[in-house]
Amino acid sequence: MVKMTPQILKGTRDFLPPQFIYRKKVMKIIARTFEQFGFAPMETPALEYADTLEGKYGEEGDRLIYKFEDRGGRKVALRYDLTVPLARVVAMYPLEKPFRRYQIAPVWRADKPQKGRYREFWQCDADIVGTPEVWADAEVIAVTYFALCNLGFNEFTIRINNRKLLNGLALYGGIPEKDMASFFRVIDKAEKVGWEGVKNELINKNFSPETIEKTITLMEGEDSRGEEGLRKLKQILSGIPSGEAGIKEIEVIQSCLAKLKVDTGLVLFDPSLARGLDYYTGPIFETVIETPRIGSISGGGRFDGLIGLFSGKEVPATGTSLGLERIITAMEELRMFPADSTIAPVLVTVFDQNLVEESLEIASELRTAGINVEVYLNRDKLKKQLDYANKKGIRLVIIIGSEEKERGEVVVRDMEQKNQLTVFRSELVKTIHSKLSQQG
Amino acid sequence: MVKMTPQILKGTRDFLPPQFIYRKKVMKIIARTFEQFGFAPMETPALEYADTLEGKYGEEGDRLIYKFEDRGGRKVALRYDLTVPLARVVAMYPLEKPFRRYQIAPVWRADKPQKGRYREFWQCDADIVGTPEVWADAEVIAVTYFALCNLGFNEFTIRINNRKLLNGLALYGGIPEKDMASFFRVIDKAEKVGWEGVKNELINKNFSPETIEKTITLMEGEDSRGEEGLRKLKQILSGIPSGEAGIKEIEVIQSCLAKLKVDTGLVLFDPSLARGLDYYTGPIFETVIETPRIGSISGGGRFDGLIGLFSGKEVPATGTSLGLERIITAMEELRMFPADSTIAPVLVTVFDQNLVEESLEIASELRTAGINVEVYLNRDKLKKQLDYANKKGIRLVIIIGSEEKERGEVVVRDMEQKNQLTVFRSELVKTIHSKLSQQG
Repeated sequence: MVKMTPQILKGTRDFLPPQFIYRKKVMKIIARTFEQFGFAPMETPALEYADTLEGKYGEEGDRLIYKFEDRGGRKVALRYDLTVPLARVVAMYPLEKPFRRYQIAPVWRADKPQKGRYREFWQCDADIVGTPEVWADAEVIAVTYFALCNLGFNEFTIRINNRKLLNGLALYGGIPEKDMASFFRVIDKAEKVGWEGVKNELINKNFSPETIEKTITLMEGEDSRGEEGLRKLKQILSGIPSGEAGIKEIEVIQSCLAKLKVDTGLVLFDPSLARGLDYYTGPIFETVIETPRIGSISGGGRFDGLIGLFSGKEVPATGTSLGLERIITAMEELRMFPADSTIAPVLVTVFDQNLVEESLEIASELRTAGINVEVYLNRDKLKKQLDYANKKGIRLVIIIGSEEKERGEVVVRDMEQKNQLTVFRSELVKTIHSKLSQQG
Repeated sequence: MVKMTPQILKGTRDFLPPQFIYRKKVMKIIARTFEQFGFAPMETPALEYADTLEGKYGEEGDRLIYKFEDRGGRKVALRYDLTVPLARVVAMYPLEKPFRRYQIAPVWRADKPQKGRYREFWQCDADIVGTPEVWADAEVIAVTYFALCNLGFNEFTIRINNRKLLNGLALYGGIPEKDMASFFRVIDKAEKVGWEGVKNELINKNFSPETIEKTITLMEGEDSRGEEGLRKLKQILSGIPSGEAGIKEIEVIQSCLAKLKVDTGLVLFDPSLARGLDYYTGPIFETVIETPRIGSISGGGRFDGLIGLFSGKEVPATGTSLGLERIITAMEELRMFPADSTIAPVLVTVFDQNLVEESLEIASELRTAGINVEVYLNRDKLKKQLDYANKKGIRLVIIIGSEEKERGEVVVRDMEQKNQLTVFRSELVKTIHSKLSQQG
């Protein structure tokens, strides 16, 4: 037989059952939290016209879009994130607003694969479209908080800032409007390259030393953050309308978060938070965890201008995006997953080929009783079948030989307790239910 | 503002919330049924190396693969089905066998879009890898049956046949091994083009009139199907080993299906069932419904040779694929979906901006009690907020004005019964729970 080497594309992954089972659990908890906040699920295609995506993610982003020509000569592209397709959808259909939707789906980026960076990865987005009120920003921050709590995280920081405040701060430093996006993109790298790195890059980009000094001083120190930092900035930016507006919005959000029962001790105002994307216009936020140090596990903000690119008229919107890959990496490292990850806790063995129908009948009875059951459908020795159950972590194994069959009995073997008992067929469902309800 | 026309790629679809909510429900029921049979979920990437997919689907299939070169000059392709990626996975990893997995995921085909045919559509596959026993074929037929039952279907036919039997039948007609695949592909079109069409195409393909007469006679009539048809073929194919083997396998499957509590009245032996794909080697099956007439809603069979193309050694496998799109079309036409498709049954209105925190606090209380709640976060008149609830089909609306706030009260408006009552804040959760548990 001619054999071709089976290969998977670098930067993409197969999720085999044990792993995909808990990936699914994580997605389900996130989805359930989104739904508790009234976000409804929506789905957009993986393929979009290329020009729908182009020009929305900055130069660097544009380069990473998977683009190609289809058989009809159409320029198409693979979904790069879930926000731009949302903007297209809102522009295309007459949706009732405020419109709350969530989407949990893969996105693709033609990036260089490296540890923790993939060409195909999953995002979990929840957005509110159609209200300019920052109450909505508080809701999306709160839903992020509760999703992380429901997943079992208890140590994380939600950093919040506001593009208007950053605008005010930039104005205060003498930066003209046209250079602000470039300024923010450099600030965004502080975590990665440190403040000295940021200063050097700003010098290279021809920002004046004076400007750099005036602005960075307000962002780099520990005391520029939190309540104290906000109080200080309030004085400094007083008289600069965008700065004042940004600070006011942060205060409203903080107050709303308290009412939404978010632990405000985990929420930190941080004027150095910039978020890379160009399209943010108001509040911005991200969640970071310290252990393990994997950077932000969620990010988001208000993007009042993006939908207008499609609809011709501004539609305000805000949203959050949870990064499934980093969340799962963190949960793995923190051992937050249960050891158990089999789908079926029961295996019915096949003693010999004359008894296979007996085994199928037993499986059918148990399934009807709501129990997930696998049948071992090969002519292997019983020992091999038991080994299989052991390796897969299946707890209970059912054995029926011809003698048991004659007596109307079945053997139930408990692979964890390493013992077995013989029960009447008529008692089997009850026995299995009772064994499964015991802690396993 | 410069506006670009928002467009979706032809042949792909947006699933907006009301529709996607029931799509999700359908997928969940199918997934739950698969799990009941011990199939575990697995996920493979959307992007594969092109040569992983090429040459597996026949000439026509190959043309429909979405292929392109990525930035690194690699020839890549979008997943065309879920079976070939499964074969690649089985060849790549040391999996415990028999290996049962399911996958519910989109696939892409560069096809001409038309009614009911899409460029992106979803398949729901369950396969058992690593056993040559047709007991496994019975299990995948049974899981298909129970998935359809659990979805609410009660009138459908599971047609079964066997490639070995077809081989025998072709030998009986004098067709050499090398022409059989071509012969089966023509037979497969009988439903679409009728038996006269099949005969004409066979003549065009240079099959002899004698051969055509001998074989088609055994397939076209009503009496060639079911028990009677099987009995007749058993006599005719006696002495042709592949024919005998095929018939024996069908008998074993039928007997297993009865033990698995499948209503065998819905299972029909049909020697004219051929299934288009080249890679089938044994039992083949599909499910058809008469109302509405949309063809097959599931298909599958044994493919003992496919995995060997990757692994170099044969690994037997069998599986079923449910077509989500046709299932949903049928369910829509048969009105099998509940009218209700909102995520949150409760809307908390915002009476005026001074009371927004009050509204958020109420929402938070209800969410903590496990109720999905939306807050209307815009400065709109109450009437507009009530209209919104009406249009979205939200059952209960909570209103809190300054007077209610002072008295520690809340108004609960029932949008269906068109009445409202005033309750104490402390009674709110209880009231909402009780109203929601009433039939809505």
